[in-house]
Amino acid sequence: MQKRQYTNIIGTFLFKEDKMIARDIKTTKKMDEDPDFIFPKLPEFQKQFYELNMKQTAKDIINSVKTDNLISQSVNNIDELNRTINLLGKRLREWFGLYFPELNSQINDNEIYAKLVLDKNKEQLSKKYGVKSVGADLDKADVTQIKVLATEITLLVKLREKQKLYIEKLMAKLCPNTTEVATAQIGAELIAHAGSLENLAEMTSSTIQLLGAEKALFRHLKNKRSSCPKHGIIINHPIVASSRQKDHGKAARHLASAISMAAKVDYFHEKGKPNKDYGKKLMAKVKKQLK
Amino acid sequence: MQKRQYTNIIGTFLFKEDKMIARDIKTTKKMDEDPDFIFPKLPEFQKQFYELNMKQTAKDIINSVKTDNLISQSVNNIDELNRTINLLGKRLREWFGLYFPELNSQINDNEIYAKLVLDKNKEQLSKKYGVKSVGADLDKADVTQIKVLATEITLLVKLREKQKLYIEKLMAKLCPNTTEVATAQIGAELIAHAGSLENLAEMTSSTIQLLGAEKALFRHLKNKRSSCPKHGIIINHPIVASSRQKDHGKAARHLASAISMAAKVDYFHEKGKPNKDYGKKLMAKVKKQLK
Repeated sequence: MQKRQYTNIIGTFLFKEDKMIARDIKTTKKMDEDPDFIFPKLPEFQKQFYELNMKQTAKDIINSVKTDNLISQSVNNIDELNRTINLLGKRLREWFGLYFPELNSQINDNEIYAKLVLDKNKEQLSKKYGVKSVGADLDKADVTQIKVLATEITLLVKLREKQKLYIEKLMAKLCPNTTEVATAQIGAELIAHAGSLENLAEMTSSTIQLLGAEKALFRHLKNKRSSCPKHGIIINHPIVASSRQKDHGKAARHLASAISMAAKVDYFHEKGKPNKDYGKKLMAKVKKQLK
Repeated sequence: MQKRQYTNIIGTFLFKEDKMIARDIKTTKKMDEDPDFIFPKLPEFQKQFYELNMKQTAKDIINSVKTDNLISQSVNNIDELNRTINLLGKRLREWFGLYFPELNSQINDNEIYAKLVLDKNKEQLSKKYGVKSVGADLDKADVTQIKVLATEITLLVKLREKQKLYIEKLMAKLCPNTTEVATAQIGAELIAHAGSLENLAEMTSSTIQLLGAEKALFRHLKNKRSSCPKHGIIINHPIVASSRQKDHGKAARHLASAISMAAKVDYFHEKGKPNKDYGKKLMAKVKKQLK
């Protein structure tokens, strides 16, 4: 005799040889009196149970989408747009390089490169950079095709800007203190990496400090010869990036501590919108500590 | 006494202990009379030599760009656009899935998916697919952000179409016979893979048959347990793709043979534009062989 037990959001149910022995809140009494009791009107109960379950699950799914999810999606989207812009930018450099190879070494930024391809012709570029080009003389139709690609790249860059603005709006609404301390972009990356603001608020300061440096951390733990990483995502924060090389660790530690506090304030605040005063205080403290 | 010899496009030059013993076409005579002869006006000669060399190299570089290069760039660009559209398409599915998850399983094509996201609202989609959505109710601003991404994807799809048309034009100009036999897209991929039409024309039929399946081929050569690949890029050709599974190898063999002939005709043709009559004949022959 096999007994299988299923637990879900409504209650716990027992199955015996494909027949359900119901243990619901409503039937607990009878169950306690007779453990081998089989629910009398089984098909109806099963149907009812299924419908209730579906309704509740649908409701839970609908309510499970939070601002955190939108932030995660946007952060990942920006990441993918970066990859795309780099990929197509490289192609543009190689392709336009057939026509005017001298531009590649002059311009590092893909966005500016694409704009120059669109705005200037060969003569203007030669004049601007004072070089005699060794590029091939392509037909106008061939150059047009390259320009179409350049247009696409500038569009992708614009899309990335839009996404960044959108993230800033979401962050200001969801967690003003974390945004104040960590900046919108890095705060959003931290939330995306942690999974949600809740997860971030429950993390210790040292975990936040190393978020995004998991690979280096595990390499260190596995093989003591490599040193422990000092910072993950927060390396890009102006406070850490602008500090001296030897102070990077210290700056990251203080900043992570402040972010941890700010996330807790944002997530566990009393009802009503949290204001960003606390974040400003935290930031002032960090700046003082790093002087 | 060290002697170093440099050969370049102008001639052969001998250096001895940093002093040049010139062996140019113009100076061969004196050199022959006295092998240890050092050119009398060394600095002038060196300068002249440098300038001539630079001029010739620049000219060679300018002339080195051929239609083949443009085809390669376009083929690679299409490849990258495919990757980009897939990457952003996946993101769109995940993101829009928060709002209307039921659409994902209904539509496989990223292009159609993006169009539906743009054209229909939630009610219309629910009605069309007869489902009650368990997606979250997002604000209009949040949905707009998703639609911006969908717009970008449709633009990338349009760009890919433009590139394909461009390749067709280039191919019809460069190698009408190869295009006739292999189709513009597959012919262009073969040229991009081989490096140039010249390389393709010099390849044997069996090499062309396996172009693009190098990994599988070397796996077979290294480890006899895995079977030898029957086709590379040409698997996508209608003739091969539409044949029965067991005839794939035969179709690929005959097709590769025809492509090899066509590429030779296109590359080694007499002056003047080659016409595609030969390609048509080859294609008719392949079709007859496969009956």
